[in-house]
Amino acid sequence: MSDDPLEQLAKLLARLPGIGAKTGLRLAHHLFHAPERYREDLGRALLDLADQVKTCDLCGRPSTANPCPICADPERDQGLMMVLEDALDLAAIEKTGAFRGVYHLLGGAISPLAGRGPDKLNIPMLLERLRSGQVREVIVATNPSAEGDATANYLDELIAAEAPAVVRTRPARGLPVGAEIRYLDPHSLEAALKGRRGC
Amino acid sequence: MSDDPLEQLAKLLARLPGIGAKTGLRLAHHLFHAPERYREDLGRALLDLADQVKTCDLCGRPSTANPCPICADPERDQGLMMVLEDALDLAAIEKTGAFRGVYHLLGGAISPLAGRGPDKLNIPMLLERLRSGQVREVIVATNPSAEGDATANYLDELIAAEAPAVVRTRPARGLPVGAEIRYLDPHSLEAALKGRRGC
Repeated sequence: MSDDPLEQLAKLLARLPGIGAKTGLRLAHHLFHAPERYREDLGRALLDLADQVKTCDLCGRPSTANPCPICADPERDQGLMMVLEDALDLAAIEKTGAFRGVYHLLGGAISPLAGRGPDKLNIPMLLERLRSGQVREVIVATNPSAEGDATANYLDELIAAEAPAVVRTRPARGLPVGAEIRYLDPHSLEAALKGRRGC
Repeated sequence: MSDDPLEQLAKLLARLPGIGAKTGLRLAHHLFHAPERYREDLGRALLDLADQVKTCDLCGRPSTANPCPICADPERDQGLMMVLEDALDLAAIEKTGAFRGVYHLLGGAISPLAGRGPDKLNIPMLLERLRSGQVREVIVATNPSAEGDATANYLDELIAAEAPAVVRTRPARGLPVGAEIRYLDPHSLEAALKGRRGC
C-alpha cells in the first residue's frame, strides 16, 4: 500500500499520546469514511486553536480571555492560590466546587528522566505573584507522585526564600474516599497512618 | 470552565471510536501544547483527505488512483478475487505477501443489531465483477464472527445464483499459529477438530 495521504494521516495520529501505529491507522480509515462535515470541523478546530485560545499571563491556563475568567473574578479569593501541574488538574479541582481561590499552573512537574528541569516550568511568574503581597497562602498541589513530590519540595524551599510571608500548605494524604484498605498500595496506607487525627 | 474552542475540540475528538470524553479532553490539551506545525499538518491532512483520496470504482478501497494500483496491476491474478470487509483487512492480507489476486471490499458486514443490511454493502459491484467472466474463483474472507459468517453465507447463496460459474471458497478455520490449546476458545477448537486433515 502506498496510499500516501491516508498513511500520512495515520502517522500524524500515531504521534498522539496513547495512540500507536495500529490505532492511528484505524482512526485514519475511520476518518476517511466519516462525514466530510466532521472532518472539516475537526480540521478547522485544530488550525484555529492557536488563534482562539491563548495562555493566561497570570496563571498560565489556556483561555480565550487574558487574564482568564478565574484570575479576573472579583468573587474569588485572590489571597488563596493553588499551584497545580496543568489545566486538567484544574478542571478536576473546579469540578469539586470546594475551592474559591485562584490558581497557578506549572505546566508539568520536574522530571530528571524526561530532561525537564525547573527552568521548563512556569515558576518565575509564580514567584512574582507571591512576592506581590496579595497572596497569604499557597497550596502546592502537585500530583502525589515521585515527580510531583520532588517539584513540591523544590517549590517549598524556593517560596520560603523568595516570599517568606506566604503560608505554604499541601493537600492532606490519606485514604481516598471509597477505597478498600486491602487493595490500597503501601505508600498510601503509610501516609494515611502517619497523618492520623484524633476523632 | 467555558473555554469553548478547547472544549469543542475535546468533544469532536471524543466522537472517534475508542476515545471517550476524558481522553478527548486530554488529547485536546495535548494538542494545545503541541507545536503549531504539528496541529497544522494534522488539520490540513483532515481537510484535504477527501480531495486526495478517492474510492476505487472496482474494489472499493481508498486510493489516490482510480482504479487503484492493485486493480490496475497486470502482474496480479485478476481471475482470483478475495472479498474482505474493509481496507484494514486488506492491509493485513497484503502484509503476508501470500496473495497475488485482486480484492473486493464490502465496506463492513451485515449487522441486524446495527441496522446494517446487505443494501449498505458494496455488493452490486461485486456481482457485476463476478458476472464479467474474468473471475474463476472468489474467496469470501469476511471475519470469523457472527456478523462476518452471516455475510459470507448470504454472499454464498447470492453468488451461486448470480454467477454460478465462479468457484466459491473460504479461508480455513483452525488453530492460529502460536496459539496454546489450553487458552483457545471452544468455537475455534471445534472448528479445528472438524477441519482436521490427514498428515
